Amino acid sequence: MPRTATGESSIARAVRIFATFTPDDVSLQVSEIARRTNLHIATASRLIAELTAHGLLERGPNREVRVGVKMWELASRASPTLSLRNAAMPYLEDMHAVVGQHAQLGILDGLDVLFIERLSARDAIVNYSRIAGRLPLHISSSGHVLLANGPLELQEHILSRPLQRYTDRTITTPEELRAALDDTRRRGYALLPGHVHPHATGVAVPVRNAFNEVVAALSLIVPNDGRAEAHVQLLMAAARGVTRALSDPRYTCR
Amino acid sequence: MPRTATGESSIARAVRIFATFTPDDVSLQVSEIARRTNLHIATASRLIAELTAHGLLERGPNREVRVGVKMWELASRASPTLSLRNAAMPYLEDMHAVVGQHAQLGILDGLDVLFIERLSARDAIVNYSRIAGRLPLHISSSGHVLLANGPLELQEHILSRPLQRYTDRTITTPEELRAALDDTRRRGYALLPGHVHPHATGVAVPVRNAFNEVVAALSLIVPNDGRAEAHVQLLMAAARGVTRALSDPRYTCR
Repeated sequence: MPRTATGESSIARAVRIFATFTPDDVSLQVSEIARRTNLHIATASRLIAELTAHGLLERGPNREVRVGVKMWELASRASPTLSLRNAAMPYLEDMHAVVGQHAQLGILDGLDVLFIERLSARDAIVNYSRIAGRLPLHISSSGHVLLANGPLELQEHILSRPLQRYTDRTITTPEELRAALDDTRRRGYALLPGHVHPHATGVAVPVRNAFNEVVAALSLIVPNDGRAEAHVQLLMAAARGVTRALSDPRYTCR
Repeated sequence: MPRTATGESSIARAVRIFATFTPDDVSLQVSEIARRTNLHIATASRLIAELTAHGLLERGPNREVRVGVKMWELASRASPTLSLRNAAMPYLEDMHAVVGQHAQLGILDGLDVLFIERLSARDAIVNYSRIAGRLPLHISSSGHVLLANGPLELQEHILSRPLQRYTDRTITTPEELRAALDDTRRRGYALLPGHVHPHATGVAVPVRNAFNEVVAALSLIVPNDGRAEAHVQLLMAAARGVTRALSDPRYTCR
Protein backbone atom coordinates (compact mmCIF):
# COMPACT_ATOMS: atom_id res chain seq x y z
CA MET A 1 0.00 0.00 0.00
CA PRO A 2 1.54 3.37 -0.89
CA ARG A 3 2.07 5.41 2.24
CA THR A 4 3.15 8.97 2.91
CA ALA A 5 6.06 10.03 5.12
CA THR A 6 3.82 9.81 8.22
CA GLY A 7 3.09 6.16 7.42
CA GLU A 8 -0.65 6.70 7.04
CA SER A 9 -2.24 5.43 3.83
CA SER A 10 -4.67 7.52 1.78
CA ILE A 11 -7.41 5.03 2.64
CA ALA A 12 -6.84 5.57 6.37
CA ARG A 13 -7.02 9.32 5.79
CA ALA A 14 -10.15 9.00 3.66
CA VAL A 15 -11.81 7.04 6.48
CA ARG A 16 -10.89 9.84 8.90
CA ILE A 17 -12.40 12.40 6.52
CA PHE A 18 -15.69 10.49 6.21
CA ALA A 19 -15.81 10.08 9.99
CA THR A 20 -15.90 13.89 10.44
CA PHE A 21 -19.42 14.04 8.97
CA THR A 22 -22.28 13.45 11.41
CA PRO A 23 -26.07 13.78 11.26
CA ASP A 24 -25.59 17.30 12.68
CA ASP A 25 -22.74 18.13 10.31
CA VAL A 26 -23.92 16.87 6.93
CA SER A 27 -21.72 19.39 5.11
CA LEU A 28 -18.39 20.91 6.12
CA GLN A 29 -15.88 23.36 4.69
CA VAL A 30 -12.47 21.97 3.68
CA SER A 31 -10.76 23.96 6.44
CA GLU A 32 -13.08 22.43 9.04
CA ILE A 33 -12.39 18.91 7.72
CA ALA A 34 -8.64 19.61 7.90
CA ARG A 35 -9.04 20.85 11.48
CA ARG A 36 -11.11 17.87 12.60
CA THR A 37 -8.86 15.27 10.94
CA ASN A 38 -5.68 17.05 11.97
CA LEU A 39 -4.52 16.88 8.33
CA HIS A 40 -2.58 19.68 6.70
CA ILE A 41 -4.99 21.82 4.65
CA ALA A 42 -3.12 21.03 1.40
CA THR A 43 -3.25 17.30 2.14
CA ALA A 44 -6.94 17.46 3.02
CA SER A 45 -7.71 19.48 -0.14
CA ARG A 46 -5.90 17.01 -2.40
CA LEU A 47 -7.62 14.01 -0.86
CA ILE A 48 -11.06 15.71 -0.91
CA ALA A 49 -10.49 16.57 -4.59
CA GLU A 50 -9.74 12.94 -5.39
CA LEU A 51 -12.71 11.62 -3.39
CA THR A 52 -14.94 14.20 -5.12
CA ALA A 53 -13.66 13.13 -8.55
CA HIS A 54 -14.86 9.60 -7.72
CA GLY A 55 -18.24 10.88 -6.47
CA LEU A 56 -17.52 9.63 -2.94
CA LEU A 57 -17.74 13.23 -1.73
CA GLU A 58 -19.56 16.09 -3.45
CA ARG A 59 -19.53 19.89 -3.32
CA GLY A 60 -22.62 21.89 -2.36
CA PRO A 61 -23.67 25.29 -3.71
CA ASN A 62 -21.23 27.11 -1.38
CA ARG A 63 -18.34 24.72 -2.06
CA GLU A 64 -19.06 22.95 1.21
CA VAL A 65 -18.20 19.25 1.17
CA ARG A 66 -20.69 16.44 1.82
CA VAL A 67 -20.95 12.67 1.42
CA GLY A 68 -21.50 11.80 -2.25
CA VAL A 69 -24.20 9.72 -3.88
CA LYS A 70 -21.57 7.24 -5.16
CA MET A 71 -20.39 6.53 -1.61
CA TRP A 72 -23.95 5.75 -0.61
CA GLU A 73 -24.48 3.61 -3.70
CA LEU A 74 -21.28 1.55 -3.26
CA ALA A 75 -22.08 1.04 0.42
CA SER A 76 -25.75 0.17 -0.10
CA ARG A 77 -25.99 -1.79 -3.33
CA ALA A 78 -24.55 -5.04 -2.00
CA SER A 79 -24.63 -4.37 1.71
CA PRO A 80 -25.25 -7.36 4.00
CA THR A 81 -26.52 -4.74 6.48
CA LEU A 82 -29.11 -3.65 3.95
CA SER A 83 -30.10 -7.25 3.20
CA LEU A 84 -31.00 -7.74 6.84
CA ARG A 85 -32.82 -4.44 6.80
CA ASN A 86 -34.77 -5.42 3.67
CA ALA A 87 -35.84 -8.70 5.25
CA ALA A 88 -37.03 -6.83 8.37
CA MET A 89 -38.62 -3.85 6.63
CA PRO A 90 -42.18 -5.18 6.10
CA TYR A 91 -42.33 -6.19 9.79
CA LEU A 92 -40.96 -2.85 10.95
CA GLU A 93 -43.59 -1.12 8.83
CA ASP A 94 -46.41 -3.25 10.22
CA MET A 95 -45.32 -2.64 13.83
CA HIS A 96 -44.88 1.04 13.17
CA ALA A 97 -48.36 1.29 11.63
CA VAL A 98 -50.02 -0.66 14.46
CA VAL A 99 -48.21 0.92 17.43
CA GLY A 100 -47.63 4.42 16.00
CA GLN A 101 -44.27 4.81 17.77
CA HIS A 102 -40.61 4.41 16.79
CA ALA A 103 -39.75 0.94 15.41
CA GLN A 104 -36.07 0.08 15.06
CA LEU A 105 -33.65 -2.58 13.89
CA GLY A 106 -30.22 -2.66 15.53
CA ILE A 107 -27.10 -4.79 15.16
CA LEU A 108 -24.09 -5.34 17.38
CA ASP A 109 -21.06 -3.36 16.20
CA GLY A 110 -18.06 -3.07 18.50
CA LEU A 111 -19.26 -1.86 21.91
CA ASP A 112 -22.47 -0.28 20.54
CA VAL A 113 -25.82 -1.00 19.00
CA LEU A 114 -25.78 0.36 15.45
CA PHE A 115 -29.32 1.18 14.28
CA ILE A 116 -29.67 0.17 10.65
CA GLU A 117 -33.31 1.16 10.30
CA ARG A 118 -35.70 3.33 12.18
CA LEU A 119 -39.26 4.29 11.36
CA SER A 120 -40.27 7.34 13.37
CA ALA A 121 -43.75 8.41 14.27
CA ARG A 122 -44.10 12.11 13.46
CA ASP A 123 -45.66 12.75 16.89
CA ALA A 124 -43.81 10.05 18.82
CA ILE A 125 -42.03 10.52 22.11
CA VAL A 126 -38.36 11.50 22.23
CA ASN A 127 -35.62 9.14 21.20
CA TYR A 128 -31.89 9.55 20.74
CA SER A 129 -31.29 6.92 18.09
CA ARG A 130 -31.34 7.50 14.33
CA ILE A 131 -30.45 5.59 11.19
CA ALA A 132 -26.77 4.73 11.37
CA GLY A 133 -26.85 6.12 14.90
CA ARG A 134 -25.33 4.29 17.84
CA LEU A 135 -26.13 3.74 21.50
CA PRO A 136 -23.98 2.09 24.19
CA LEU A 137 -24.98 -1.51 24.86
CA HIS A 138 -25.70 -1.05 28.58
CA ILE A 139 -28.32 1.70 28.22
CA SER A 140 -30.59 0.50 25.39
CA SER A 141 -33.04 -2.40 25.27
CA SER A 142 -31.59 -3.46 21.89
CA GLY A 143 -28.15 -3.38 23.48
CA HIS A 144 -29.28 -5.68 26.29
CA VAL A 145 -30.73 -8.16 23.79
CA LEU A 146 -27.55 -8.16 21.68
CA LEU A 147 -25.23 -8.31 24.70
CA ALA A 148 -27.23 -11.03 26.50
CA ASN A 149 -27.02 -13.17 23.36
CA GLY A 150 -23.53 -12.05 22.36
CA PRO A 151 -20.04 -13.47 22.96
CA LEU A 152 -19.18 -14.08 26.63
CA GLU A 153 -15.92 -12.11 26.24
CA LEU A 154 -17.91 -9.06 25.14
CA GLN A 155 -20.20 -9.35 28.19
CA GLU A 156 -17.18 -9.58 30.51
CA HIS A 157 -15.50 -6.67 28.74
CA ILE A 158 -18.57 -4.43 29.11
CA LEU A 159 -19.05 -5.52 32.73
CA SER A 160 -15.43 -4.55 33.51
CA ARG A 161 -15.74 -0.99 32.16
CA PRO A 162 -17.29 2.14 33.69
CA LEU A 163 -21.01 2.29 32.75
CA GLN A 164 -21.99 5.84 31.85
CA ARG A 165 -25.16 7.28 33.41
CA TYR A 166 -27.77 8.84 31.08
CA THR A 167 -30.75 9.13 33.44
CA ASP A 168 -31.63 8.25 37.05
CA ARG A 169 -32.67 4.82 35.81
CA THR A 170 -29.56 3.94 33.76
CA ILE A 171 -27.80 0.82 35.01
CA THR A 172 -24.31 1.79 36.20
CA THR A 173 -23.09 -1.19 38.23
CA PRO A 174 -21.89 -4.53 36.86
CA GLU A 175 -24.13 -6.43 39.34
CA GLU A 176 -27.29 -4.74 38.08
CA LEU A 177 -26.24 -5.18 34.45
CA ARG A 178 -25.48 -8.89 34.98
CA ALA A 179 -28.92 -9.38 36.57
CA ALA A 180 -30.63 -7.44 33.74
CA LEU A 181 -28.88 -9.56 31.10
CA ASP A 182 -29.95 -12.74 32.95
CA ASP A 183 -33.55 -11.42 32.92
CA THR A 184 -33.31 -10.64 29.21
CA ARG A 185 -32.12 -14.16 28.40
CA ARG A 186 -34.74 -15.80 30.65
CA ARG A 187 -37.72 -13.72 29.44
CA GLY A 188 -36.60 -13.46 25.81
CA TYR A 189 -36.91 -9.68 25.73
CA ALA A 190 -35.46 -6.52 27.30
CA LEU A 191 -37.61 -3.75 28.73
CA LEU A 192 -35.82 -0.61 29.98
CA PRO A 193 -38.10 2.19 31.20
CA GLY A 194 -36.38 5.58 31.20
CA HIS A 195 -32.82 4.27 30.86
CA VAL A 196 -31.95 6.46 27.82
CA HIS A 197 -34.46 9.27 28.34
CA PRO A 198 -36.85 9.69 31.30
CA HIS A 199 -39.96 9.80 29.07
CA ALA A 200 -39.19 6.79 26.86
CA THR A 201 -39.23 3.04 27.35
CA GLY A 202 -37.32 0.71 25.06
CA VAL A 203 -38.56 -2.82 24.52
CA ALA A 204 -36.53 -5.20 22.35
CA VAL A 205 -36.43 -8.83 21.24
CA PRO A 206 -33.73 -10.87 19.47
CA VAL A 207 -33.90 -11.62 15.73
CA ARG A 208 -32.38 -14.98 14.80
CA ASN A 209 -31.10 -16.17 11.44
CA ALA A 210 -31.83 -19.60 9.94
CA PHE A 211 -29.00 -21.04 12.10
CA ASN A 212 -30.66 -19.79 15.30
CA GLU A 213 -27.92 -17.18 15.82
CA VAL A 214 -29.02 -13.77 17.13
CA VAL A 215 -28.16 -11.32 14.33
CA ALA A 216 -30.16 -8.23 15.33
CA ALA A 217 -32.57 -6.69 17.81
CA LEU A 218 -36.03 -5.50 16.89
CA SER A 219 -37.32 -2.76 19.20
CA LEU A 220 -40.06 -0.26 19.90
CA ILE A 221 -39.58 3.02 21.73
CA VAL A 222 -42.83 3.87 23.51
CA PRO A 223 -43.92 6.32 26.22
CA ASN A 224 -42.68 5.56 29.74
CA ASP A 225 -46.18 4.89 31.10
CA GLY A 226 -45.80 1.33 32.43
CA ARG A 227 -47.61 -0.24 29.46
CA ALA A 228 -44.66 -1.19 27.23
CA GLU A 229 -44.88 -4.91 28.07
CA ALA A 230 -48.11 -5.08 26.04
CA HIS A 231 -45.97 -4.88 22.87
CA VAL A 232 -43.76 -7.90 23.59
CA GLN A 233 -45.90 -10.44 21.73
CA LEU A 234 -46.09 -8.20 18.67
CA LEU A 235 -42.29 -7.84 18.70
CA MET A 236 -41.75 -11.59 19.13
CA ALA A 237 -44.10 -12.44 16.26
CA ALA A 238 -42.40 -9.82 14.03
CA ALA A 239 -38.95 -11.25 14.92
CA ARG A 240 -40.13 -14.71 13.81
CA GLY A 241 -41.28 -13.19 10.52
CA VAL A 242 -37.85 -11.65 9.97
CA THR A 243 -36.20 -15.03 10.66
CA ARG A 244 -38.43 -16.61 8.03
CA ALA A 245 -37.59 -13.85 5.54
CA LEU A 246 -33.86 -14.27 6.29
CA SER A 247 -34.14 -17.94 5.37
CA ASP A 248 -35.46 -16.89 1.97
CA PRO A 249 -32.63 -17.22 -0.58
CA ARG A 250 -33.38 -13.71 -1.85
CA TYR A 251 -31.88 -12.32 1.35
CA THR A 252 -28.35 -12.79 2.63
CA CYS A 253 -28.04 -13.56 6.32
CA ARG A 254 -25.39 -11.82 8.26
CA MET B 1 -1.74 11.45 -3.51
CA PRO B 2 0.60 8.45 -3.27
CA ARG B 3 0.37 6.47 -6.49
CA THR B 4 1.77 3.16 -7.59
CA ALA B 5 3.90 2.62 -10.67
CA THR B 6 0.76 2.32 -12.81
CA GLY B 7 -0.35 5.79 -11.72
CA GLU B 8 -3.57 4.58 -10.11
CA SER B 9 -4.15 5.65 -6.50
CA SER B 10 -5.30 3.22 -3.81
CA ILE B 11 -8.56 5.14 -3.57
CA ALA B 12 -9.26 4.59 -7.27
CA ARG B 13 -8.53 0.88 -6.79
CA ALA B 14 -10.71 0.71 -3.70
CA VAL B 15 -13.59 2.23 -5.68
CA ARG B 16 -13.10 -0.44 -8.36
CA ILE B 17 -13.15 -3.16 -5.70
CA PHE B 18 -16.42 -1.87 -4.18
CA ALA B 19 -17.95 -1.61 -7.65
CA THR B 20 -17.49 -5.39 -8.18
CA PHE B 21 -20.17 -6.13 -5.57
CA THR B 22 -23.76 -6.16 -6.83
CA PRO B 23 -27.13 -7.18 -5.37
CA ASP B 24 -26.55 -10.60 -6.98
CA ASP B 25 -22.94 -10.81 -5.79
CA VAL B 26 -23.05 -9.68 -2.19
CA SER B 27 -19.94 -11.68 -1.35
CA LEU B 28 -16.97 -12.60 -3.51
CA GLN B 29 -13.70 -14.50 -3.15
CA VAL B 30 -10.47 -12.48 -3.34
CA SER B 31 -9.52 -14.22 -6.60
CA GLU B 32 -12.85 -13.22 -8.17
CA ILE B 33 -12.39 -9.60 -7.06
CA ALA B 34 -8.88 -9.60 -8.56
CA ARG B 35 -10.28 -11.00 -11.81
CA ARG B 36 -13.13 -8.49 -12.04
CA THR B 37 -10.96 -5.47 -11.19
CA ASN B 38 -8.06 -6.68 -13.32
CA LEU B 39 -5.75 -6.17 -10.33
CA HIS B 40 -2.87 -8.51 -9.57
CA ILE B 41 -3.98 -10.97 -6.88
CA ALA B 42 -1.26 -9.75 -4.48
CA THR B 43 -2.32 -6.13 -4.98
CA ALA B 44 -5.99 -7.00 -4.54
CA SER B 45 -5.22 -9.04 -1.37
CA ARG B 46 -3.21 -6.20 0.19
CA LEU B 47 -5.88 -3.63 -0.54
CA ILE B 48 -8.70 -5.91 0.66
CA ALA B 49 -6.73 -6.53 3.87
CA GLU B 50 -6.41 -2.79 4.48
CA LEU B 51 -10.09 -2.10 3.70
CA THR B 52 -11.04 -5.00 6.00
CA ALA B 53 -8.87 -3.61 8.80
CA HIS B 54 -10.89 -0.39 8.56
CA GLY B 55 -14.20 -2.32 8.54
CA LEU B 56 -15.03 -1.06 5.03
CA LEU B 57 -14.99 -4.67 3.87
CA GLU B 58 -15.52 -7.77 6.00
CA ARG B 59 -14.85 -11.49 5.75
CA GLY B 60 -17.66 -14.05 5.86
CA PRO B 61 -17.53 -17.55 7.37
CA ASN B 62 -15.78 -18.97 4.27
CA ARG B 63 -13.33 -16.07 3.99
CA GLU B 64 -15.47 -14.55 1.24
CA VAL B 65 -15.33 -10.76 1.11
CA ARG B 66 -18.37 -8.49 1.47
CA VAL B 67 -19.15 -4.82 2.07
CA GLY B 68 -18.51 -3.96 5.73
CA VAL B 69 -20.79 -2.35 8.29
CA LYS B 70 -18.40 0.61 8.63
CA MET B 71 -18.68 1.41 4.92
CA TRP B 72 -22.47 1.50 5.28
CA GLU B 73 -22.23 3.60 8.43
CA LEU B 74 -19.83 6.20 6.96
CA ALA B 75 -21.98 6.44 3.81
CA SER B 76 -25.32 6.64 5.62
CA ARG B 77 -24.75 8.64 8.79
CA ALA B 78 -24.49 12.06 7.16
CA SER B 79 -25.76 11.26 3.68
CA PRO B 80 -27.68 14.00 1.84
CA THR B 81 -29.24 11.11 -0.09
CA LEU B 82 -30.53 9.68 3.17
CA SER B 83 -31.84 13.08 4.31
CA LEU B 84 -34.06 13.22 1.24
CA ARG B 85 -35.08 9.64 1.84
CA ASN B 86 -35.94 10.39 5.50
CA ALA B 87 -38.11 13.33 4.47
CA ALA B 88 -39.94 11.14 1.96
CA MET B 89 -40.23 7.99 4.08
CA PRO B 90 -43.54 8.67 5.88
CA TYR B 91 -45.19 9.48 2.53
CA LEU B 92 -43.71 6.39 0.88
CA GLU B 93 -45.04 4.32 3.76
CA ASP B 94 -48.52 5.81 3.51
CA MET B 95 -48.70 5.25 -0.26
CA HIS B 96 -47.36 1.75 0.11
CA ALA B 97 -49.95 0.93 2.79
CA VAL B 98 -52.85 2.42 0.80
CA VAL B 99 -51.96 1.06 -2.65
CA GLY B 100 -50.27 -2.20 -1.63
CA GLN B 101 -47.75 -2.05 -4.50
CA HIS B 102 -44.13 -0.92 -4.88
CA ALA B 103 -43.50 2.69 -3.83
CA GLN B 104 -40.17 4.23 -4.81
CA LEU B 105 -38.03 7.33 -4.52
CA GLY B 106 -35.49 7.98 -7.27
CA ILE B 107 -32.91 10.67 -8.00
CA LEU B 108 -31.06 11.67 -11.14
CA ASP B 109 -27.49 10.34 -11.18
CA GLY B 110 -25.53 10.50 -14.39
CA LEU B 111 -27.62 8.95 -17.17
CA ASP B 112 -29.76 6.86 -14.80
CA VAL B 113 -32.40 7.02 -12.13
CA LEU B 114 -30.84 5.85 -8.88
CA PHE B 115 -33.50 4.44 -6.54
CA ILE B 116 -32.71 5.52 -2.99
CA GLU B 117 -35.74 3.92 -1.38
CA ARG B 118 -38.19 1.24 -2.32
CA LEU B 119 -40.97 -0.32 -0.31
CA SER B 120 -42.04 -3.60 -1.88
CA ALA B 121 -45.33 -5.33 -1.51
CA ARG B 122 -44.69 -8.99 -0.73
CA ASP B 123 -47.22 -10.05 -3.39
CA ALA B 124 -46.69 -7.13 -5.78
CA ILE B 125 -46.14 -7.42 -9.50
CA VAL B 126 -42.65 -7.73 -10.94
CA ASN B 127 -40.21 -4.86 -10.91
CA TYR B 128 -36.57 -4.55 -11.83
CA SER B 129 -35.58 -1.72 -9.53
CA ARG B 130 -34.18 -2.14 -6.02
CA ILE B 131 -32.60 0.04 -3.37
CA ALA B 132 -29.45 1.56 -4.84
CA GLY B 133 -30.53 0.02 -8.12
CA ARG B 134 -30.52 1.96 -11.37
CA LEU B 135 -32.69 2.19 -14.48
CA PRO B 136 -31.99 4.09 -17.70
CA LEU B 137 -33.84 7.43 -17.88
CA HIS B 138 -35.73 6.66 -21.10
CA ILE B 139 -37.48 3.50 -19.89
CA SER B 140 -38.77 4.37 -16.43
CA SER B 141 -41.52 6.76 -15.35
CA SER B 142 -39.19 8.22 -12.70
CA GLY B 143 -36.59 8.72 -15.41
CA HIS B 144 -39.06 10.64 -17.59
CA VAL B 145 -39.97 12.90 -14.66
CA LEU B 146 -36.31 13.59 -13.83
CA LEU B 147 -35.29 14.05 -17.47
CA ALA B 148 -38.28 16.26 -18.37
CA ASN B 149 -37.36 18.54 -15.45
CA GLY B 150 -33.61 18.13 -15.80
CA PRO B 151 -30.90 20.16 -17.56
CA LEU B 152 -31.53 20.75 -21.29
CA GLU B 153 -28.05 19.44 -22.15
CA LEU B 154 -28.89 16.13 -20.47
CA GLN B 155 -32.13 15.85 -22.51
CA GLU B 156 -30.24 16.53 -25.75
CA HIS B 157 -27.51 14.08 -24.76
CA ILE B 158 -30.04 11.27 -24.07
CA LEU B 159 -31.98 12.11 -27.25
CA SER B 160 -28.77 11.78 -29.29
CA ARG B 161 -27.90 8.30 -28.00
CA PRO B 162 -29.28 4.88 -28.96
CA LEU B 163 -32.30 4.06 -26.76
CA GLN B 164 -32.21 0.45 -25.65
CA ARG B 165 -35.38 -1.64 -26.01
CA TYR B 166 -36.64 -3.55 -22.93
CA THR B 167 -40.16 -4.49 -24.06
CA ASP B 168 -42.43 -3.98 -27.08
CA ARG B 169 -43.58 -0.75 -25.48
CA THR B 170 -40.17 0.79 -24.67
CA ILE B 171 -39.59 4.13 -26.39
CA THR B 172 -36.65 3.76 -28.76
CA THR B 173 -36.83 6.82 -31.05
CA PRO B 174 -35.87 10.41 -30.12
CA GLU B 175 -39.15 11.74 -31.57
CA GLU B 176 -41.29 9.55 -29.31
CA LEU B 177 -39.11 10.35 -26.28
CA ARG B 178 -39.29 14.09 -26.95
CA ALA B 179 -43.10 13.87 -27.19
CA ALA B 180 -43.31 11.78 -23.99
CA LEU B 181 -41.15 14.31 -22.10
CA ASP B 182 -43.40 17.14 -23.35
CA ASP B 183 -46.43 15.18 -22.07
CA THR B 184 -44.73 14.62 -18.72
CA ARG B 185 -44.00 18.34 -18.30
CA ARG B 186 -47.52 19.35 -19.41
CA ARG B 187 -49.42 16.82 -17.27
CA GLY B 188 -47.06 16.95 -14.29
CA TYR B 189 -46.60 13.17 -14.20
CA ALA B 190 -45.24 10.27 -16.26
CA LEU B 191 -47.18 7.08 -16.89
CA LEU B 192 -45.40 4.29 -18.77
CA PRO B 193 -47.39 1.05 -19.17
CA GLY B 194 -45.17 -1.95 -19.86
CA HIS B 195 -42.03 0.01 -20.79
CA VAL B 196 -39.75 -1.84 -18.33
CA HIS B 197 -41.70 -5.08 -17.98
CA PRO B 198 -44.87 -6.07 -19.89
CA HIS B 199 -46.89 -6.67 -16.68
CA ALA B 200 -45.96 -3.46 -14.84
CA THR B 201 -46.90 0.19 -15.20
CA GLY B 202 -44.77 2.92 -13.69
CA VAL B 203 -46.38 6.18 -12.65
CA ALA B 204 -44.19 8.98 -11.30
CA VAL B 205 -44.38 12.63 -10.21
CA PRO B 206 -41.67 15.20 -9.48
CA VAL B 207 -40.62 16.07 -5.91
CA ARG B 208 -39.53 19.70 -5.52
CA ASN B 209 -37.38 21.26 -2.79
CA ALA B 210 -38.15 24.56 -1.06
CA PHE B 211 -36.60 26.42 -4.05
CA ASN B 212 -39.03 24.72 -6.47
CA GLU B 213 -36.22 22.65 -8.01
CA VAL B 214 -37.05 19.04 -8.92
CA VAL B 215 -34.82 16.91 -6.68
CA ALA B 216 -36.42 13.47 -6.97
CA ALA B 217 -39.23 11.39 -8.45
CA LEU B 218 -41.84 9.62 -6.38
CA SER B 219 -43.33 6.61 -8.13
CA LEU B 220 -45.61 3.62 -7.86
CA ILE B 221 -45.20 0.40 -9.83
CA VAL B 222 -48.65 -1.12 -10.32
CA PRO B 223 -50.15 -3.85 -12.53
CA ASN B 224 -50.42 -3.02 -16.23
CA ASP B 225 -54.23 -3.08 -16.23
CA GLY B 226 -55.02 0.42 -17.51
CA ARG B 227 -55.92 1.77 -14.07
CA ALA B 228 -52.61 3.35 -13.03
CA GLU B 229 -53.82 6.91 -13.65
CA ALA B 230 -56.08 6.60 -10.59
CA HIS B 231 -52.94 6.93 -8.40
CA VAL B 232 -51.74 10.26 -9.79
CA GLN B 233 -53.53 12.45 -7.23
CA LEU B 234 -52.20 10.35 -4.35
CA LEU B 235 -48.65 10.69 -5.74
CA MET B 236 -49.01 14.45 -6.24
CA ALA B 237 -50.29 14.98 -2.70
CA ALA B 238 -47.46 12.82 -1.32
CA ALA B 239 -44.87 14.82 -3.34
CA ARG B 240 -46.22 18.05 -1.80
CA GLY B 241 -45.80 16.50 1.63
CA VAL B 242 -42.18 15.63 0.88
CA THR B 243 -41.55 19.23 -0.28
CA ARG B 244 -42.94 20.49 3.01
CA ALA B 245 -40.75 18.04 4.96
CA LEU B 246 -37.69 19.11 2.92
CA SER B 247 -38.31 22.71 3.97
CA ASP B 248 -38.11 21.58 7.59
CA PRO B 249 -34.68 22.56 8.96
CA ARG B 250 -34.24 19.04 10.36
CA TYR B 251 -33.76 17.79 6.78
CA THR B 252 -31.05 18.84 4.36
CA CYS B 253 -32.21 19.56 0.82
CA ARG B 254 -30.16 18.21 -2.00
